[in-house]
Amino acid sequence: MNWEDNIRRAVPYTPGEQPQGKGIIKLNTNENPYPPAPGVEKLLREMDSDSLRLYPDPDARELTETLAKYYGLRPAQIFVGVGSDDVLAMAFLTFFHSGRPILFPDITYSFYDVWAGLFQIPYRECPLDGDFRLRTEDYLQENGGIIFPNPNAPTGILEPLEKVEEILRANPGVVVIVDEAYIDFGGVSCLPLLEKYDNLLVVQTFSKSRSLAGMRIGFAMGGEKLITYLKNVKFSFNSYTMNRTALALGVEAVKDDAYFKNCNARIVETRERIKKELLKLDFTFMDSRANFIFAAHKRVPGARLFAELKERGIFVRHWEKPRIADHIRITIGTEEQMDRLLEALREILASCG
Amino acid sequence: MNWEDNIRRAVPYTPGEQPQGKGIIKLNTNENPYPPAPGVEKLLREMDSDSLRLYPDPDARELTETLAKYYGLRPAQIFVGVGSDDVLAMAFLTFFHSGRPILFPDITYSFYDVWAGLFQIPYRECPLDGDFRLRTEDYLQENGGIIFPNPNAPTGILEPLEKVEEILRANPGVVVIVDEAYIDFGGVSCLPLLEKYDNLLVVQTFSKSRSLAGMRIGFAMGGEKLITYLKNVKFSFNSYTMNRTALALGVEAVKDDAYFKNCNARIVETRERIKKELLKLDFTFMDSRANFIFAAHKRVPGARLFAELKERGIFVRHWEKPRIADHIRITIGTEEQMDRLLEALREILASCG
Repeated sequence: MNWEDNIRRAVPYTPGEQPQGKGIIKLNTNENPYPPAPGVEKLLREMDSDSLRLYPDPDARELTETLAKYYGLRPAQIFVGVGSDDVLAMAFLTFFHSGRPILFPDITYSFYDVWAGLFQIPYRECPLDGDFRLRTEDYLQENGGIIFPNPNAPTGILEPLEKVEEILRANPGVVVIVDEAYIDFGGVSCLPLLEKYDNLLVVQTFSKSRSLAGMRIGFAMGGEKLITYLKNVKFSFNSYTMNRTALALGVEAVKDDAYFKNCNARIVETRERIKKELLKLDFTFMDSRANFIFAAHKRVPGARLFAELKERGIFVRHWEKPRIADHIRITIGTEEQMDRLLEALREILASCG
Repeated sequence: MNWEDNIRRAVPYTPGEQPQGKGIIKLNTNENPYPPAPGVEKLLREMDSDSLRLYPDPDARELTETLAKYYGLRPAQIFVGVGSDDVLAMAFLTFFHSGRPILFPDITYSFYDVWAGLFQIPYRECPLDGDFRLRTEDYLQENGGIIFPNPNAPTGILEPLEKVEEILRANPGVVVIVDEAYIDFGGVSCLPLLEKYDNLLVVQTFSKSRSLAGMRIGFAMGGEKLITYLKNVKFSFNSYTMNRTALALGVEAVKDDAYFKNCNARIVETRERIKKELLKLDFTFMDSRANFIFAAHKRVPGARLFAELKERGIFVRHWEKPRIADHIRITIGTEEQMDRLLEALREILASCG
């Protein structure tokens, strides 16, 4: 007997590249182009380094209370984790335990099938329709749970609240997770549905709209019972997931609402401008409500655009997958970064005849 | 059908209290009484807060390389995580997957049975002998993996390398995890055994000897194959577990070896002094090689000592469990803190007649 026969083999998720180096334009992992709120820097300077020898608050009380106040919920309705990936991993482990297949779209965040694989959760991918929209009827079949992002990734398409509610109404027997990682760029959150549905879990993150991808802070909101079950699993995994700097800086990022709203408004404005420019360049794309645009060119394949941009120091994301191989996903950067992107695209398209 | 019927129910680990407030003496969670290395504070002041908007390096390259160099290993032999709890949780998930019971001592870190419960891993607790030592013969039975801390917690007893190797030699078919959270306080690490046993995983932490419990940094060392399997599971769970501050401050803590060794030597010196003092007060205890002492009084029960100390603002740890209910676990603090502890104990013992 060899020890290798006794282990769990997993096929990991592949995150976007994290290239280093000056002059690179990084539009590949949907980070925010604007720095975190000024209070974050201030706190970093003032933090008591001696306190780092002590364990952090396992209940993340201050951050939880700050988020609860901001979203008009009770602290017992909030769960925080090491980025929304940590929150989602814990949620898969906790809620998708029936043995029946869970449901999610065929084109979506490519971590869902990885978690299902890791935890041996059966799953069924429901094909988006021809316009890359959720088909409600797919989510009326028997299942062991449902998860989808809204806006969806990598399409950026926002589904209306009515559709989310229709799915919830049909599925009182399972947990429905709405992954709202990109909700702050003009989307409408399904948070108000929490009052009516105690099986709804809404997941958000500090990585995109709050400019703190580097600090790993995500959170879930739901009924108190749902959150308690999630906490029981989390506290069976690791008592102290959030370190002291994440807890403290996270609070600062939520406090400065004016800064938060201003940055997001700028990103939305840039996104809408770039949509117009991309149209002129013969791109087609979905009507993104996220901080990225998922675009295909009428003549030049996605893989080619990806490679040519990379050669010019501009990183976007491309998946060699059915239905979406023609697309590239472009994160919305600063106005200057986007101008350089457009310039590069013009050059590439010209050279492609 | 109710959604609650479909979820995983877990009974979480209970960490030691994290009391706040001035004047409290916290000797209950084995934190280091000395601040992190001076370089940690310096880096905190100098850190570029703008970079926090970008994802951290998912491979934690700099920290991994720094640790590899320090321990004389290759970077591919190092795995880092959010405290050793995160590392151990991932290791349970990865390596204890045979369906056969894993083995660990009956008196040990009380998270082991929680992880086994969470991941539905069968387990068997092997009773320590009358002197609270591992009985090698218990680990020769068929099993699905082995884990034990060395020094053991909460006893503080260090097992000799020969015993660790005997267990390894008998178990080539499973992964053997040696949890060396407390090894830096005078213990002898089993790291040299890595050369001979590719099924050995050694886990250590920054929370005790490196004064960074608040930053959540743990790591595992093993053969490259073992580490690759562990990484595959980790990258199927969360691509970015270590945030930017943890990665950067962790490097600083390893760099300053003189500071590290000096702090640990002071803790060992204090521990040995306190042993003598506790003897005078009629305590019995095991010969701890960790940064705590697990002591029982000849007349006064552990629960009483725990409560009386708490009333005086001194927090130690007590478990109402078979075989150890008479004991309290006292973390080694500064000389001053320990003097106040001794003073309080004298007062309590006097009042107990």
